[in-house]
Amino acid sequence: MSQPDADMAWPDLAGRLVKDEAGLAHVLPVRVYFEDTDFSGLVYHGSYVRWCERGRSDFLRLLGNSHRDLDVGVDAREPAAFVVRRMRLDFLKPARIDDVLGIRTRVKEIAAATLTLDQAVYRDEVCLFEAEVMVVLVGRSGKPQRLGRMIREALART
Amino acid sequence: MSQPDADMAWPDLAGRLVKDEAGLAHVLPVRVYFEDTDFSGLVYHGSYVRWCERGRSDFLRLLGNSHRDLDVGVDAREPAAFVVRRMRLDFLKPARIDDVLGIRTRVKEIAAATLTLDQAVYRDEVCLFEAEVMVVLVGRSGKPQRLGRMIREALART
Amino acid sequence: MSQPDADMAWPDLAGRLVKDEAGLAHVLPVRVYFEDTDFSGLVYHGSYVRWCERGRSDFLRLLGNSHRDLDVGVDAREPAAFVVRRMRLDFLKPARIDDVLGIRTRVKEIAAATLTLDQAVYRDEVCLFEAEVMVVLVGRSGKPQRLGRMIREALART
Amino acid sequence: MSQPDADMAWPDLAGRLVKDEAGLAHVLPVRVYFEDTDFSGLVYHGSYVRWCERGRSDFLRLLGNSHRDLDVGVDAREPAAFVVRRMRLDFLKPARIDDVLGIRTRVKEIAAATLTLDQAVYRDEVCLFEAEVMVVLVGRSGKPQRLGRMIREALART
Repeated sequence: MSQPDADMAWPDLAGRLVKDEAGLAHVLPVRVYFEDTDFSGLVYHGSYVRWCERGRSDFLRLLGNSHRDLDVGVDAREPAAFVVRRMRLDFLKPARIDDVLGIRTRVKEIAAATLTLDQAVYRDEVCLFEAEVMVVLVGRSGKPQRLGRMIREALART
Repeated sequence: MSQPDADMAWPDLAGRLVKDEAGLAHVLPVRVYFEDTDFSGLVYHGSYVRWCERGRSDFLRLLGNSHRDLDVGVDAREPAAFVVRRMRLDFLKPARIDDVLGIRTRVKEIAAATLTLDQAVYRDEVCLFEAEVMVVLVGRSGKPQRLGRMIREALART
Repeated sequence: MSQPDADMAWPDLAGRLVKDEAGLAHVLPVRVYFEDTDFSGLVYHGSYVRWCERGRSDFLRLLGNSHRDLDVGVDAREPAAFVVRRMRLDFLKPARIDDVLGIRTRVKEIAAATLTLDQAVYRDEVCLFEAEVMVVLVGRSGKPQRLGRMIREALART
Repeated sequence: MSQPDADMAWPDLAGRLVKDEAGLAHVLPVRVYFEDTDFSGLVYHGSYVRWCERGRSDFLRLLGNSHRDLDVGVDAREPAAFVVRRMRLDFLKPARIDDVLGIRTRVKEIAAATLTLDQAVYRDEVCLFEAEVMVVLVGRSGKPQRLGRMIREALART
């Protein structure tokens, strides 16, 4: 069975950039599967951490930065990857098997070497989870990379 | 931010049922994220097992059977959940971060109490992984449930 | 092959309670396996969240409270499980495949319905990760349970 | 808090090599945590796959081969890592939260480039899960490495 052009075939796979009164946001839909739940019958708390990473990855992807490009080191940049430095997580309400959730990601602050994002998980209109996440772009040498320009330009293009 | 009607808003979230020369199949697109890889630089072998479960869940969902319906016990059936009895897994080629993969699922055999599925993971036209998976539907009492009729009727409706 | 009495056979499996100048702490050793790493070559950030849960579980286990006892509802208490309400996570230094790490857990504050723990991950003398975690004990009805007495008595017994 | 010499401090962390009537085996104890379970109330089927990997890693570790040594390329060998080629998994009985399980690993067959292991998960005397796993040692160039001598010498030393 062929998958002729995967990105074309599944246009929403990386979610969508949306603009609302608060500015630019990214929304990624996530289904709750067996792997995301635990014996309490609800979603395992660590699953939200994985989902937020997916949201960040696809937000940056739609802004033009894939992990693989970073890893290879495009545009004369040293190969690099995003690394999480700090998270603040608030678990507000439980999610359950089969739920369709929306992972919402916004830029909160761009500093020279750090990017801080606001993330939240919604089921319909209800917010189940909130996170503030600070990431840095670290080169293979271990040194943080300047990411301000890359992200600022990407945001300006949207 | 609202998610007014999640299933409507993301029409492909559960993948698609497709018909080809070999009959009915289900295809679920999956993106490779950080969580799916390991320090070898490639996808962790256990990730294929999680992806296959997503494929099975969404295949059965599009046939009309959600985990939650089963868990509550619709249609006078005892509450039940699918349980994996046996897997045969062949890892053919590696997948990498950012890849878009297609999880393909087909019914191989329906017996009174067991359902055997053929599953495979593709990147474009290339098959990376194949699995044969036997599942049973187990009621809360621990006894296997007859699933032949439910699945047969669902397949007949497609 | 027999596992005659698992808890006896592996005396350190739940880690150890230790007393130092700062009071009572629990230490759980954790090995870094393939499943804990990602394609960056380092440990995936979500793995620390899983390890902290193991540390909390074994700390409470050595204080006399297993998840299964809580789930069944011993001592005339309603069946209950611990639920994470809030986490603050600081990722200080990376860990790598094969590392032996120590997950250290201390009680920071006991309120009527919430328990706040300080957790940290060490490799030898070096702190790699710090967390502050607030959990509540939630009964099957969805209502928070009083946990002050249970934990206080357990701490007093040590 | 110090972890002066982690391997010394936790002598059983990598499990134990044992000899019985069937020859040499490795046993690794594993506790069932929240992360290993799913909403069915039992252990998630993918957890057994993760546990088997831990068992294989610690078996090879006690035979003298760490992932990190392989990754760096000791003894003039090309840097390499173990890759799973094929698994056959039988899920016999469920495991539950708080269970202490034993992951048993034995060498089934050593070929020039492949190693086949028999693995099983026990709770006390009861076998819950069986697996046959074929792995290959793959160098950074992508080519399979000869592993017969390394493993044979290690087995001969025991």
